[in-house]
This record gives sequence, C-alpha cells and structure tokens, in this order.
Amino acid sequence: MKSDLERLMTEKGLDALVVLGAAAGNPSLYYVVDGAGLGNAIWIKRRGHEPHLVYNPMERDQARATGIDGSTFPENDWSRFLEEHGGEGPETTAAFLSHLLKKNGASGNVGVYGTGEAARLYPMIKKLGETPGITIHEETNGRSLLEAARITKSEVEVARMKKVALACFDAMDGIKAIIRSGRLMNGRLHDRTGRALTIGDLRAAVRRAWAQHGVIEDHDSVVAMGKDGTAPHNRGTDTDVLEAGKSIVVDIFPREGGGGYFFDMTRTFCVGTAPARLREVYSQVKEVLLSALAELAVGTRCIDYQIKACERFEAMGYTTIRQDSRVESGYVHGLGHGVGLDIHESPRLGGPLSNPDVLAPGHVITVEPGLYLPDEGVAVRLEDVVYVRPDGRIENLTTYPYDMEIFPEG
Amino acid sequence: MKSDLERLMTEKGLDALVVLGAAAGNPSLYYVVDGAGLGNAIWIKRRGHEPHLVYNPMERDQARATGIDGSTFPENDWSRFLEEHGGEGPETTAAFLSHLLKKNGASGNVGVYGTGEAARLYPMIKKLGETPGITIHEETNGRSLLEAARITKSEVEVARMKKVALACFDAMDGIKAIIRSGRLMNGRLHDRTGRALTIGDLRAAVRRAWAQHGVIEDHDSVVAMGKDGTAPHNRGTDTDVLEAGKSIVVDIFPREGGGGYFFDMTRTFCVGTAPARLREVYSQVKEVLLSALAELAVGTRCIDYQIKACERFEAMGYTTIRQDSRVESGYVHGLGHGVGLDIHESPRLGGPLSNPDVLAPGHVITVEPGLYLPDEGVAVRLEDVVYVRPDGRIENLTTYPYDMEIFPEG
Repeated sequence: MKSDLERLMTEKGLDALVVLGAAAGNPSLYYVVDGAGLGNAIWIKRRGHEPHLVYNPMERDQARATGIDGSTFPENDWSRFLEEHGGEGPETTAAFLSHLLKKNGASGNVGVYGTGEAARLYPMIKKLGETPGITIHEETNGRSLLEAARITKSEVEVARMKKVALACFDAMDGIKAIIRSGRLMNGRLHDRTGRALTIGDLRAAVRRAWAQHGVIEDHDSVVAMGKDGTAPHNRGTDTDVLEAGKSIVVDIFPREGGGGYFFDMTRTFCVGTAPARLREVYSQVKEVLLSALAELAVGTRCIDYQIKACERFEAMGYTTIRQDSRVESGYVHGLGHGVGLDIHESPRLGGPLSNPDVLAPGHVITVEPGLYLPDEGVAVRLEDVVYVRPDGRIENLTTYPYDMEIFPEG
Repeated sequence: MKSDLERLMTEKGLDALVVLGAAAGNPSLYYVVDGAGLGNAIWIKRRGHEPHLVYNPMERDQARATGIDGSTFPENDWSRFLEEHGGEGPETTAAFLSHLLKKNGASGNVGVYGTGEAARLYPMIKKLGETPGITIHEETNGRSLLEAARITKSEVEVARMKKVALACFDAMDGIKAIIRSGRLMNGRLHDRTGRALTIGDLRAAVRRAWAQHGVIEDHDSVVAMGKDGTAPHNRGTDTDVLEAGKSIVVDIFPREGGGGYFFDMTRTFCVGTAPARLREVYSQVKEVLLSALAELAVGTRCIDYQIKACERFEAMGYTTIRQDSRVESGYVHGLGHGVGLDIHESPRLGGPLSNPDVLAPGHVITVEPGLYLPDEGVAVRLEDVVYVRPDGRIENLTTYPYDMEIFPEG
C-alpha cells in the first residue's frame, strides 16, 4: 500500500524517489498522484519528507486537486533548461531533475520510476547518475519498490476495481443478449432480419458496455471462436459468423477511464447445445477453477497453485506447460496474476518453480485455468478475480455465473 | 518512414536495433510490428539483415500474421533464463537479450527501444551493455532513431488516421445533437423530461462515438465549460449543468483500438447565442488558425509559426507564452505538434526558439491556437490536423465546420 513507501525506501536504501511521465497508462506515476490526469509531471520524494509535484501549468487544476505540495515547470525555470540544451531530450531532463533534486534538498541514492521510452530513459538516467552526490538506485530481479507497494491493495483501490467489474458483467450480459436475440439457420446465427451475426457484433456489444461505464480497453479484448480461441491471446476474427456448438472464449480487461485500475474476466460461451466434448472440457476447466478458488489461503506459495492445476489437468490426460514450456495443446499458461494498475502484476500464480511469491492479505489476483485443443478447435478458459481481505478471507470479485450454453430465442 | 530505418541505423552508427515490450501504447514496437496485438515481444534487427521477432506462443497467430521471421520465447529457452535468474526482471531480460543478439549474429553498437518502466529498463540496459562485444547506443537530445523514422507518415498511416478522424467528427456531431435536443430554462439546458443536461452527458456522447468506431481514449477527453476551459488541460466537470452563453472547449484525441494511431481535434461550442466577448475571442482564435493554415509551407522552420501566432495575439492585446513562460492568461501554449503513434510527437510548432524542426513532406501536425481568460471564465481553442503531402501540398484532415453557437431546438 502507498503507506508502505516510506518503509520500502528505508529497506531499499533510497534517499530520494523520482516518478515521472504522464499519469495515464503509467502505473508508477498514476499511483503516487492518485490518478490525477497529468500529461507530464515529476513527483519527487525525499526520504522522511513530504513529496513535491512539478506539473504543467495547463494542468494546474488537477495538480492542485491532488493536495500534494507543488510547483509548475515554468516556476522551476524549465524554459531555461530547454534553451540551454536545445529542446526536450535526455540531457535536458537529466539537468532539470538534477536541479529539482538539489532544490528539494535530495541527494544520495536516487530511484527513478515511471513509464517511458527506453531510448530516452536510459541515457537520461545514466546522465543523472553523473551528477556529483547522486547515485542511481538499480532495481534487481524481484519486485521493484513501487511494485512492492502496489502488490497490496487498499479497500479504496478494490472498490474502484469492483466498479470496473460491473462494466465487465454488463459486457458479458450484452454478448448473451445478442446470442439470445438471434435464431439459428443451418447452424449459423442470424438476427430477425436474416443478417448473419458475427464475432464483430459481440465485440461491439463489449464496446458499448465500456462506453456506458466510461471504462477503456487499451488492448483489444479476446472474443475468439473455435480454433482462434486455442491460441489464448488470439483476439478473434470479427467477420466470423457465430456457429452453433463452437467454443467462444471472451476475455475482457478494461481499465478505468484516464488509465487507472483494471479488471480482468473470462467466460466461455457456446451458441445453443454444446457437443459432448466441449461439455467435458468445460466441466474440467470449471473443476480446476473451483478447486483452486477453494484452496486459496494466505501464506501459501503462489507457485503451488499452478503445480496443483498442472497435476489435475495431467490426471485428466492433458499435457501441461510444466511438462514442456513449448506445449501448445492442453494447459499452456500460468494459473493467474496480480491485477491493479497493470493488467499483469505481482503476485504470479505461475512462472518458474523458483517464483517466491506468497499469497498475502491485500493481494488481488486472477485465477484462470484453461484448456486449448488446436486439433479439435476447442478452447475453454474461465477467469475470476479474487481479493485477499485484510482478515485473510478470500472474496471473489467476479460475482457472475459460469453458464456456457446460451440459447437463441429469436 | 519505416523504409528509412536501415539508412538511419547507418547514419547513427547502430549495428543492431532491439525493440521490446507490449505493442499497445508502445509506439516503437507497434511501429515495427505494424500494430500486431502482441502482449510481450522482442524485435531484433541486425543492420543489413531482415528483422527477427521473438513472441509468446499464446500470440502465435498475430505474430505469424506480421510476416516477420520469428520464433517463440520457449523456442529460445526463455524458461531456462527464468529458472537461472529466479523469475522475470532486469537481469533475466538482459541475459536473454544478450543470448538473442548472439544467436542473430549481432554485436557492436546496439540501440534498445520500446516503452516500459524506467526502474526495469535502466538496470536491464546497463547490464546488457556489460556483455562483451556490446555497447549501448545512447540517444542524445533531438529525435531518436525511431522518432526520426516515424516523423514522416506513409499514405497508409494517414489513411488510418483519417478513419480515427471520422470518429472525432461523429463525437462532435453527438455533442451538437444533445445541445440541439435540449431546451433552455433560466439559462440552463434541460432535456424534454426536464432533466438538466450536463458536461457528463456530452462526454457520454463522445464515448458512444468511440464505441461505434472501435477507437479508444487512453487519456480522458477535454469537455470543459467556462472557467474549467481556461486551464487548457482541465478535463471538465461532469456534474456541471450546461449553461447558455458559456464557452465549452471540446478537445478529443482517440486512437485506434489496440493502441495505434491517434487523431486530435478541438472545437469550442456555446449553447445558444454567444456574448459579444466570446464572439470576439472566438473570431480572433479562428483568424490565427486560418492564417497559420494558409501559411504552412514545406521548408519553413516550425518555430516560425509559433512566433507569428504570438505576434498576432500580442497585436490583439493579449499576453503570450513567448513573453513569459509562466503566463496563464492569453495565449499560453505551443501552436501544434506532430501526431501519430504518440499524441504528441515531432515536429513541434512550439518549444524553445532553438527548436530545429522544419516542415517537410510526410509530416502530420496539429494547428491549435487558443485564448484563455481565467478572470473572465472564457476559453476558446480550435484545432485541426494537417498532412503535408509528398508533393508538398497541405491537406487539412479535419474536414469539419467551425460553428460555435449551437441552438437548442427542444
């Protein structure tokens, strides 16, 4: 949690913390400015002191609303740095940061965070490290300081994710409504006017839900039928006409408008009665999901859930990723991941056996087993998000049914 | 253009180019993989050779569709690197990149590009630079290699931006339709049921246009009435009831679904008849816009357009940013910026006087003068996007009227 930042700075030996960039789509800056809509800002915190925010005067209203002590770029002579260095660039930013650190009385071991372009950030941070009195804190493998803070969510953060969850439920309802409104002709779904209904129509329903809820989709959702769904991240083909009896994997992961918190949810549908094989695969995935959900407990190594999921799928006769990392049939990915300001963050219910993550209060994670059978054109994935409450109890945030077969009523 | 990459590598002395990360919201990677929906990939190009793409097997369909020679992470022993280094992190990625470069016969001066977290990228790139035979190419001030390629757009890229423009026009139409559908009661706009219409209703109309067109808004649009609009990046207040005679600045900048090309457009509206002062300010901004549009010519320094805009506003009696970078009243920002995979990119019609950008064929730029009068609660900004065609002719992509006053018909 954000209140851990001071402690984490001490533990990691940081004298100052710098977070920069635009807030949208930048988990580090978004986190420290509470999602203020800033297009370009620098947040500086000296250990043991309150932070200071340098902002664009065009964004003064949202900067002031953060309540963080602040000043504008012009008030810090930004234009002098631009003139001296011939415009924006790594040298200009490094000189400006060095100036700001000095002005805020900060020196020593400085950590620089925030999302940006590698080709800009690397020379800028290297240059900053050449300032006398400043050394750059280098994160190693394992969680970075801000990831370590972000891994435990506050009730406020969880409440925001629950709101995004409502958009997901409406999107799933929208998909079901389109299927129900149709009628089958020769195994293909049509609307009442006789027009063929497609994957694109389902995706449009998802987007309408995003517009209604004011959430955004910064990667395309997965709405993938049959063989498409067997490559787990295939987005699906909009021109595909919906066919009876095929698996349709719907994996949606919108975030708050302004580039904030994500939710992540997967259901698998079938138009009309599912063939026996799809029913079997569906019930197997559901069984592994429900088992994992029932077993989640504070203090357990996260990788253990992945191992158990592999064991279960192997006992059912499938190949799994722990047997061969190149496997493309069977169970081919991790069991889950943290969700927050990143769609994939700590902790991981997967990865190498050496993954040290341990489930703890405040974690928000997905649980998402799946089976992928490219040769049969069948794919099933089910994904819920759970919150480990402060008292250690597991709360499933995905309060949405697991029905697969949706019957056209047109 | 992308075909410039080979030449730029030679000019900048790069032996190899590495671009990494997720494609969405990552202009560098999105550019080299033509927008393929990749959640995590590494693109490597040795000078004088075809590129190679390393991708997640779950994304094999979209990776193969790029037509780029490729292989999966598991095929490159990624899991061995994860095990050896205890999971993901800067050390693991550096070791893996070093391995991939060697495998692709690349060494020497290596440039690393792509959007990511500074605290991960810096130690990773530094570590990579410790590999024998590899030195890291450091970009200095001025355009980076990929920015230099991206500054000139192909006809295909412009066609994609024109499609996003259509979404913007529909969004503006949606806003006008809501105002027209209303009726004024005591100077405030209401719908036919008597419900007060708000800024939030206008924003909802914008979002519906995004959903219909499948574009996304990764920063919140500006829909800012009266005083809100006088801080140019204030997003506006959803609960504000629409009032007759006030300026409403609408600045919208969606991008293609999947995190691709942007468009950027601003209009300023007024419910009903505008007061004389707002009309005056509006006509002044429009005059500066039309003058700038008429003067744009290949071979001219971009900063000259900003200087002329300042001169014009100063002659009208306003303070401008060139007189004082801290100014918050009058003309307070640059005249425009390049638009493409970034909402703000090269060239810049603003910045320090030393800005070296010169207008050239292939550029796509905004022209967006504005006046901001916090003491009067009046703000006007108008923004078009123009494309400098290969033959040097200027094409205005914002084929949308400049009408300000919208009259309720309810």
